[in-house]
Amino acid sequence: MPIFRLLEYDSRPMARYFKSDNTAPAAPEIIEAIAAANHGYALGYGDDAWSSRLDARFSELFEKSVRVFPVATGTAANTLSLSTLVPPYGAILTHEEGHIVRDECGAPEFMTGGARLLLMQGPNAKVTPQMIDRTLAANPPSTHTVQPRALSITQATELGTVYTPSEVKTLCDLAHSRGLVVHMDGARFANAVASLGCSAADITWRTGIDVLSFGATKNGTLTAEAVIFFDPDRAGDFEFRRKRAGHLLSKMRFASAQLLAYLDNDLWLRLATRANSLAARLGQAAGSALMHPVEANEVFVRIGDLSATALREQGFEFYDWGAVGSGEARLVVSWDQSEEDVTALCAALASLQNGGF
Amino acid sequence: MPIFRLLEYDSRPMARYFKSDNTAPAAPEIIEAIAAANHGYALGYGDDAWSSRLDARFSELFEKSVRVFPVATGTAANTLSLSTLVPPYGAILTHEEGHIVRDECGAPEFMTGGARLLLMQGPNAKVTPQMIDRTLAANPPSTHTVQPRALSITQATELGTVYTPSEVKTLCDLAHSRGLVVHMDGARFANAVASLGCSAADITWRTGIDVLSFGATKNGTLTAEAVIFFDPDRAGDFEFRRKRAGHLLSKMRFASAQLLAYLDNDLWLRLATRANSLAARLGQAAGSALMHPVEANEVFVRIGDLSATALREQGFEFYDWGAVGSGEARLVVSWDQSEEDVTALCAALASLQNGGF
Amino acid sequence: MPIFRLLEYDSRPMARYFKSDNTAPAAPEIIEAIAAANHGYALGYGDDAWSSRLDARFSELFEKSVRVFPVATGTAANTLSLSTLVPPYGAILTHEEGHIVRDECGAPEFMTGGARLLLMQGPNAKVTPQMIDRTLAANPPSTHTVQPRALSITQATELGTVYTPSEVKTLCDLAHSRGLVVHMDGARFANAVASLGCSAADITWRTGIDVLSFGATKNGTLTAEAVIFFDPDRAGDFEFRRKRAGHLLSKMRFASAQLLAYLDNDLWLRLATRANSLAARLGQAAGSALMHPVEANEVFVRIGDLSATALREQGFEFYDWGAVGSGEARLVVSWDQSEEDVTALCAALASLQNGGF
Amino acid sequence: MPIFRLLEYDSRPMARYFKSDNTAPAAPEIIEAIAAANHGYALGYGDDAWSSRLDARFSELFEKSVRVFPVATGTAANTLSLSTLVPPYGAILTHEEGHIVRDECGAPEFMTGGARLLLMQGPNAKVTPQMIDRTLAANPPSTHTVQPRALSITQATELGTVYTPSEVKTLCDLAHSRGLVVHMDGARFANAVASLGCSAADITWRTGIDVLSFGATKNGTLTAEAVIFFDPDRAGDFEFRRKRAGHLLSKMRFASAQLLAYLDNDLWLRLATRANSLAARLGQAAGSALMHPVEANEVFVRIGDLSATALREQGFEFYDWGAVGSGEARLVVSWDQSEEDVTALCAALASLQNGGF
Repeated sequence: MPIFRLLEYDSRPMARYFKSDNTAPAAPEIIEAIAAANHGYALGYGDDAWSSRLDARFSELFEKSVRVFPVATGTAANTLSLSTLVPPYGAILTHEEGHIVRDECGAPEFMTGGARLLLMQGPNAKVTPQMIDRTLAANPPSTHTVQPRALSITQATELGTVYTPSEVKTLCDLAHSRGLVVHMDGARFANAVASLGCSAADITWRTGIDVLSFGATKNGTLTAEAVIFFDPDRAGDFEFRRKRAGHLLSKMRFASAQLLAYLDNDLWLRLATRANSLAARLGQAAGSALMHPVEANEVFVRIGDLSATALREQGFEFYDWGAVGSGEARLVVSWDQSEEDVTALCAALASLQNGGF
Repeated sequence: MPIFRLLEYDSRPMARYFKSDNTAPAAPEIIEAIAAANHGYALGYGDDAWSSRLDARFSELFEKSVRVFPVATGTAANTLSLSTLVPPYGAILTHEEGHIVRDECGAPEFMTGGARLLLMQGPNAKVTPQMIDRTLAANPPSTHTVQPRALSITQATELGTVYTPSEVKTLCDLAHSRGLVVHMDGARFANAVASLGCSAADITWRTGIDVLSFGATKNGTLTAEAVIFFDPDRAGDFEFRRKRAGHLLSKMRFASAQLLAYLDNDLWLRLATRANSLAARLGQAAGSALMHPVEANEVFVRIGDLSATALREQGFEFYDWGAVGSGEARLVVSWDQSEEDVTALCAALASLQNGGF
Repeated sequence: MPIFRLLEYDSRPMARYFKSDNTAPAAPEIIEAIAAANHGYALGYGDDAWSSRLDARFSELFEKSVRVFPVATGTAANTLSLSTLVPPYGAILTHEEGHIVRDECGAPEFMTGGARLLLMQGPNAKVTPQMIDRTLAANPPSTHTVQPRALSITQATELGTVYTPSEVKTLCDLAHSRGLVVHMDGARFANAVASLGCSAADITWRTGIDVLSFGATKNGTLTAEAVIFFDPDRAGDFEFRRKRAGHLLSKMRFASAQLLAYLDNDLWLRLATRANSLAARLGQAAGSALMHPVEANEVFVRIGDLSATALREQGFEFYDWGAVGSGEARLVVSWDQSEEDVTALCAALASLQNGGF
Repeated sequence: MPIFRLLEYDSRPMARYFKSDNTAPAAPEIIEAIAAANHGYALGYGDDAWSSRLDARFSELFEKSVRVFPVATGTAANTLSLSTLVPPYGAILTHEEGHIVRDECGAPEFMTGGARLLLMQGPNAKVTPQMIDRTLAANPPSTHTVQPRALSITQATELGTVYTPSEVKTLCDLAHSRGLVVHMDGARFANAVASLGCSAADITWRTGIDVLSFGATKNGTLTAEAVIFFDPDRAGDFEFRRKRAGHLLSKMRFASAQLLAYLDNDLWLRLATRANSLAARLGQAAGSALMHPVEANEVFVRIGDLSATALREQGFEFYDWGAVGSGEARLVVSWDQSEEDVTALCAALASLQNGGF
């Protein structure tokens, strides 16, 4: 039986690093939870003491009986859940900025057996009822074409904006009335809930969400995502699909232990709240360069290529955004971003702004 | 920046637990490696300092330039690698006892887009040249049927036996001469190498293996498996397939750090050697009840249902095996199995044997 | 508007041809039906006067309200129907001699999105209850493996044998009690019904068949097969799957016209009865060389390679069967086989038999 | 052996029917070819005298050694050919008006194993180099997204326009330089060639087309389409994919006989030329209502709902087009459209035009 001790280690200077929240380490509470779970024997594949608590713990969080399935990645969470909702000849309405569109190498098509994404366009990466109406009108029911069966929205969106409960309800009501189930990609769900100040229930099943990809990795876990079915009956064949895609972890206790620790003492909300508030400071500093409202932990600015270079010369790291030459940049604040870095970047942005970018 | 300390924690009594090597915790070295990697920012999806060392480190181990791809599970490793080798209309020859046959819920079919497993039967879960000849003869080339394209063997096998380098070479030579590439499911690769006392190269590419599922989770890691392509050119589209199946981990540094630590100081071999030698003791104690040679860390015994009950009454936990009423049982020794447990089980088996089971 | 006239054309000497019923021409009634349908405009994709009569016409035949879907090939009929019955993680129990196993290049796996065939072995290509029990016992319910969901049997079988209604009922009752739906591959359904002398209903839904691939091409049509759902509710998404697989014919009236003509005046039974009775003569002549009962239009004989050569020297054409050197041969009688050819082959077989083959 | 005679049958009044070219009957030459092929035994699955002439006959037509594969539908032709060109993680650039986008129920995704269509927008349903540039720029190479691998264009387009050889060459040169292979959906290939007055070679491989869906059903055959590979090496695994999708016809001689008759004496061009010239008359009569150049056999007019009703009251049948209330209509001229109908429709259109629609 392993007994071990981790030595405290010194901090090292952090980069002024705003590239992605995927680049941050895991929160200490998460590592401690893994270490605590690393003790003795536990049945594999979810028949362990940690995994068996998940349904109850998330049901408590969501104030409703839910089914929870850990998986290894957000791509798996999104596309395995969609595969239970949409047949191979189905179609999924989604915003063209979505992760399932741009960043999953066709995983939705793969997992569903060939369903199609029907892309919708509009500001701030947010879906509107008008978009849904227009898309359904352009894809009338017919044996000759794919069948719209689901709507997938992202919360917070890929552009750092957040749907209000009222917006979600309007979309879900419309979707349901048109025979679509609704999936929420919550890779940054914690940031959205922290931003809204509402309950997890208020922004999901109470406003009509059927299935949620509950993200945790970007916001402090090591590797742990979960799919939440708000109607347990709908979970149906998820277990088979997960296994078949290689996402049933043998030592699942470690994923479950992370998820439990992530919820304990509102760790998830504390981490997200911190990141959001730092991002808000950046948004204010960006002034007129700001491209979208800062409602979560991402800040998009149009600062011009020269200013981007100037920031990089000061040691800030971030991704260019948009088309080549657009002068756009994305700044992402992680759960453990240092205040010093943010303060420094605010100052740099303000200085550039005064110079007219 | 996270600074943390794990307190030493007390051991608790271990069950006399022989159900599976998936049930063991991770080795302390692995947890330490994760904690050590949990520091500062690192690019996601494999562009980090740990992941970028993998190819070199495994190339050193295998004495050859190889390509390494971490994935979350053994099922992913097996079936994603097969999907790069076999077209949708292809077929994979494999022993009917294989994990890809019995325990992956159709993942090979899913990942390949519908290729077929051609099942072969024979003792000790080992494929023989005769089986291959017979199977190919029964599936002659034709537009009307699936096309044999790969052979997949398991090392160590699901019945705890091990192929010698000479056996592997014979199979690979035959397979290659018939147009098949050869995949090795190495979920218990460490146990096989420890058992054989040969180099990792000797039992893989030197004897003809094209692709290896390098297992680590059963033998001491938390969650880390890898696919090894011995011909880097063959890796081809693996990256796309992995991403598309949701197996490109965002914080990949943690999987890579585990794999590196697993190889450091021969940890992998030390753990496997220990498990093998304890299993060998069980095999000897089993005497005439032994069903297959004990060449790795699994022991299969035909002891009768009464004896199985007697063992369970003494607190031993294990799975029944074979058909209901067959009186067969599987005993798996984990990397951290206590010597006391093994000694106790040996005594219990010996006592039962004296009583004639 | 096309007006045309086909001149009568002379017969030419037929080969002594027993290779396959796929090699025969279409019956004159079928060509006439096509020509008669080739008149004026008709909506595409099944919204035509011929296609709209199919459900009623087949419902009359089967004495039950059924749904009928024409497709281009037997492979499409078999595998599209299975794809509506079995999920991607499902499994289909079937005899290893089946067409879906040996002659469809993995179409079942393709159409279902990766379901698995669970092969069963036994004499005369017929499934027995024992086989089903054994196969289900060897594939117990588990998240880790494919889920048995369907049984597929072939009527008449690939070895020219026929299931009685009582046998079908026993299999269907068992299958249903175990949660399996039952598909019948009726590529030679006419031969089976003609052989049994029962109604089409008696050998299908009345004894438990859920879905039938109704073959016609082997028995006299040009290109026309159909899928029959005995429970219209089960037809569910068949239309989408058919379209998506490229099997919704644009000028569907021509397929439907063939199917209607095939049923008119019992053409289907007359053609099959003739073929069966000629095959029966061959079976008698084969004497001790006969390998399976001759219950439809196929005759399997073990005559030795020398006798096979002798027959070929007399101008008879047929396929060797079984393993190389087995001396087995398959003789298939088509709907328009000449009596002279059959008489000649009977004499040749009798003569060989007297010589001891 | 069947000997038969078809009686001449009287014409009946044709509807003033402009709904689709799928609604026309087959040309008498095609029925005669089927009847002529319906004689004696012929091996199945393409090993017959008709099918074996296809490669040579089409090589003659295309002035190049080509490989030809008959299939049952245009959807099968398009998507099976794409499946040989594009991996499951690939993407296909195509105009949003294409048949593969709107009318195949996701067959491209199904046949390729989940590849994605990247939709392009622009006038007259024609792809331009700018569209390709823009689409590739918006989908930069990355492991995180689908990989553009093919361009698919339609000739004649779904809006009745035709690419010139020079336009095709520009697109193909660009596509090839960017690593894309080029597929042409030639459901109305005959209409395009007849319109251009060029050779079949000039508008395909000589200008860079790699694979062609050679349509024939809309222009006079019963059920016969073909895939043409201009580089025989590229045909690769097409045979397996066709079989596996249920598109290897057992009595293939009848499809091949149709294709041969379709080419004989330039039947294909004669039928298409006639349809085109009648459509041109409609286009002229439509005057300012014309929405796209009439370059093949389809005419799109914006006449308003009132005029559409007026035409229908005169017995003309056609489909509304575009959004509900757009007042757009599609008029399709079939190979056997009567001149009287066209003359009458021209007069009606002219009369409506004078009234201001």
